[in-house]
Amino acid sequence: MKRALSISREQNFAEWYQAVVSEADMAETSPVRGCMIVKPWGWGVWELIQGALDKRIKETGHENCYFPLFIPMSFIAQEASHVEGFAKEMAVVTHHRLKAVDGKLQVDPESRLEEPLVVRPTSETIIGDAFRRWVSSYRDLPILINQWANVVRWEMRTRMFLRTTEFLWQEGHTAHADEADALQETLKMLEVYREIAEDVLALPVVAGEKPENERFPGANNTFSIEAMMQDGKALQAGTSHYLGTNFAKAQGIRFQGASGDLEYCHTTSWGVSTRLIGGVIMTHGDDDGLRLPPAIAPKQIVIVPMLREKPEDADVLAFCEKLKSELDGLVALKAPLRAHVDKKPARAANKRWDWVRRGAPIILEIGPRDAANDVVTLIRRDRLRDGDRIVSTATLRAEFLAQAPALLAEIQRSLFEEAKARLEANIRTGYTSFDEISDYFGKAAEDDEASAFKGWVRAPWSRPTGAELEEVEARLKAFKLTLRNVPLGQAPVSASCIFTGRPAVEEILIARAY
Amino acid sequence: MKRALSISREQNFAEWYQAVVSEADMAETSPVRGCMIVKPWGWGVWELIQGALDKRIKETGHENCYFPLFIPMSFIAQEASHVEGFAKEMAVVTHHRLKAVDGKLQVDPESRLEEPLVVRPTSETIIGDAFRRWVSSYRDLPILINQWANVVRWEMRTRMFLRTTEFLWQEGHTAHADEADALQETLKMLEVYREIAEDVLALPVVAGEKPENERFPGANNTFSIEAMMQDGKALQAGTSHYLGTNFAKAQGIRFQGASGDLEYCHTTSWGVSTRLIGGVIMTHGDDDGLRLPPAIAPKQIVIVPMLREKPEDADVLAFCEKLKSELDGLVALKAPLRAHVDKKPARAANKRWDWVRRGAPIILEIGPRDAANDVVTLIRRDRLRDGDRIVSTATLRAEFLAQAPALLAEIQRSLFEEAKARLEANIRTGYTSFDEISDYFGKAAEDDEASAFKGWVRAPWSRPTGAELEEVEARLKAFKLTLRNVPLGQAPVSASCIFTGRPAVEEILIARAY
Repeated sequence: MKRALSISREQNFAEWYQAVVSEADMAETSPVRGCMIVKPWGWGVWELIQGALDKRIKETGHENCYFPLFIPMSFIAQEASHVEGFAKEMAVVTHHRLKAVDGKLQVDPESRLEEPLVVRPTSETIIGDAFRRWVSSYRDLPILINQWANVVRWEMRTRMFLRTTEFLWQEGHTAHADEADALQETLKMLEVYREIAEDVLALPVVAGEKPENERFPGANNTFSIEAMMQDGKALQAGTSHYLGTNFAKAQGIRFQGASGDLEYCHTTSWGVSTRLIGGVIMTHGDDDGLRLPPAIAPKQIVIVPMLREKPEDADVLAFCEKLKSELDGLVALKAPLRAHVDKKPARAANKRWDWVRRGAPIILEIGPRDAANDVVTLIRRDRLRDGDRIVSTATLRAEFLAQAPALLAEIQRSLFEEAKARLEANIRTGYTSFDEISDYFGKAAEDDEASAFKGWVRAPWSRPTGAELEEVEARLKAFKLTLRNVPLGQAPVSASCIFTGRPAVEEILIARAY
Repeated sequence: MKRALSISREQNFAEWYQAVVSEADMAETSPVRGCMIVKPWGWGVWELIQGALDKRIKETGHENCYFPLFIPMSFIAQEASHVEGFAKEMAVVTHHRLKAVDGKLQVDPESRLEEPLVVRPTSETIIGDAFRRWVSSYRDLPILINQWANVVRWEMRTRMFLRTTEFLWQEGHTAHADEADALQETLKMLEVYREIAEDVLALPVVAGEKPENERFPGANNTFSIEAMMQDGKALQAGTSHYLGTNFAKAQGIRFQGASGDLEYCHTTSWGVSTRLIGGVIMTHGDDDGLRLPPAIAPKQIVIVPMLREKPEDADVLAFCEKLKSELDGLVALKAPLRAHVDKKPARAANKRWDWVRRGAPIILEIGPRDAANDVVTLIRRDRLRDGDRIVSTATLRAEFLAQAPALLAEIQRSLFEEAKARLEANIRTGYTSFDEISDYFGKAAEDDEASAFKGWVRAPWSRPTGAELEEVEARLKAFKLTLRNVPLGQAPVSASCIFTGRPAVEEILIARAY
């Protein structure tokens, strides 16, 4: 069966992923190791994600601002001294000038900085430093801010969107008078992430708390949303951290309480990144390329005029332009509908396939007969094929216009439901020992990329800590498994821990992960 | 006369500027040399500028994308080899890891990069490298892209918004089949900048071409918009460059023309930055702080409830909230009106003055009597005082609602006209020799900051080049003057060049500048 990509998910999921990124015109590798070029179609998706999330961040009372790209090394040193497991792979700026020596450009040794600057891997330290200056009384609290920024982490193995040296994200940072308020904030933003993932990206997720070993270094609690990719692996799609008074103590972020006493602030931080786009691709893509949920499709309805360099071309183009302007006047998924006429000088069939690979939700092909009969020929990207056959249906233009917004909403819902069904059908429960689980995942661990779809396991555990938890981690690691999160809102558990045999206190998700 | 700032423009313009930046809550210095923290009010202004400009960039056919923050040093070396006057002050990443040695964090010498990476000062080289890969036929042209990004230039003397080590901007990059198309693009984007500056920021500007010595290194032509600050100095507020085939030749950006021949692309680049915000402050600010044009005011109408911890407070608050939601339902300057109720626990008079300093266009103070009588008491920030007295007027709520959009439009227009009148009244002409000009600017050059308002000079010149132009530059420099631009759309000139005495070919603007 011929598909629009040269490789299928089943053949090799990792290669299929790279093929979609490239064939859907989302991004490409750059000459800078581990950094990518986000192309207009990929960037358009990110702008729509940003727009939807930014609106929710503002509606929940946060204000955007912007902090420096660079962080003095002394700030990082202070963080390293109070935080264990702190990652040290980061880009370090040591000089501020280039110089031509014998016609060859090199770093000017005389421009060495007294204190090296680190390109921000995240901004807790520099924002905490500002909080210290901004907060003096309980009346100044809470402080609720967010920034959209690029950050850099020197990753050894990179994969476009999923793990890149530079990536784009938002990072929220807040300071509160007490634990209750800070924890409420942490969970509120987790819920915002769940909402954006499910309602906008059509990514069903499980929201829960990370176990101790998976916490952000320096956090009291880390919560995440986890999404299931089509290869059964988990993708951590967003995190929200309650940092207790840890950062506040290290940085002296204090306030005078109503009683007059000096108290430490309770802080939080939370972020999602361009990684979400990788999640969209691995959740909704198929062997013909990407399928974009209409809410984040830069162009929702693409009109392809079938031109033949004949006189009737003018009528076809006029029909297409009129249709576009009619569609642009409609509202779909609570925003103005985004239609586009592809007038590029290329064969109509090639253009159709380009849009199939890019995942435009609806493609309309308009030939002279369609224009003459006031008809549109429609392809739904989410239901492209019936067996091998491409499904296209002819509809009167007026009828299509009347139903277009509802059709986009249906595609959005249908992609979500397809993914939701996959998630729900593939969380296995009922295990009473780790052996059963490792039997299930079994040898596939040896060749991860090619391994069959396994899904996740949800199992009772006793929440071991310290060395006992390290042992659990090691046992899981042998099968390339990791603890994902403890889903929120669980019913009480009456079972034994699959690791320790002691009474379980909750259920935890176990999976292979990105 | 008491004003809301502790320093006036007349006392010391530079210090007054810093006071507005700080007292209007726009930005503050950061612990990183030359980098600033843009606070929520300042960032809100930038988001509105971005929104308006981004819309125009897209309407003119450009697509946004994103290129890496880092540029390999070899790319910079190549540019340096074909471009003279290329600035070499830039942040250089040389290592990718920190390491604790004897408990002290330091740069890990083993993590030295084989090739240093430069933090982008601008992206011509890395984007040109992509163009080389993207372009093969004339059918691929034009390529019209833009990115919103942070860039870093290691500046020795920095001033918030005007010149900072890191700043935020958009950079457009385009490739075309011929000179005519590329020049048209260059001028089209200059016109977009003029439009945004005048219609959105209320900054009247002069659009023109930079003389040879002020061109972007590597450009055939550089165009700019220049705005006049209240101290009479010029601020270059945006530039648009026609790069000819210079970058294309250095980078091998070629295409097969319709005839089958390989030809070099003609490229352009154009950008505006957070510097625009400095221009807004120095154009519209007064001795009570900032005055924001409504189109870029994050909150256009601020409602200050006058609360007294008495039972009628509830009525006042209810009145304010209702008023806000009524205002939010209106459209002003083609966008939903942005109203805000300031409920912070602080004295109403303090809140009023905070909003005066921040430059909210309209401030409404609502006390129990206003609420009871269905009246609003209104302060227009652009006409705050009559002599020493604060001008506030009482209006029926319904009347105010009916006129609010028109009032905001009037404030927008009035700020523009005030600045336009200043610009037009302060471009001096009629000079026949440089001596007359230097007499006029005279000794003030010795103490620039405290110098009296001088404005600009528009004088005929013969467009000298090379060594002759260098001499002109040196003569101007002695009076801290610079050549700004040759205004577009000039009538033919019949005069002698003030520098060379030869017949003039055009008039050029001369001014002190930021």
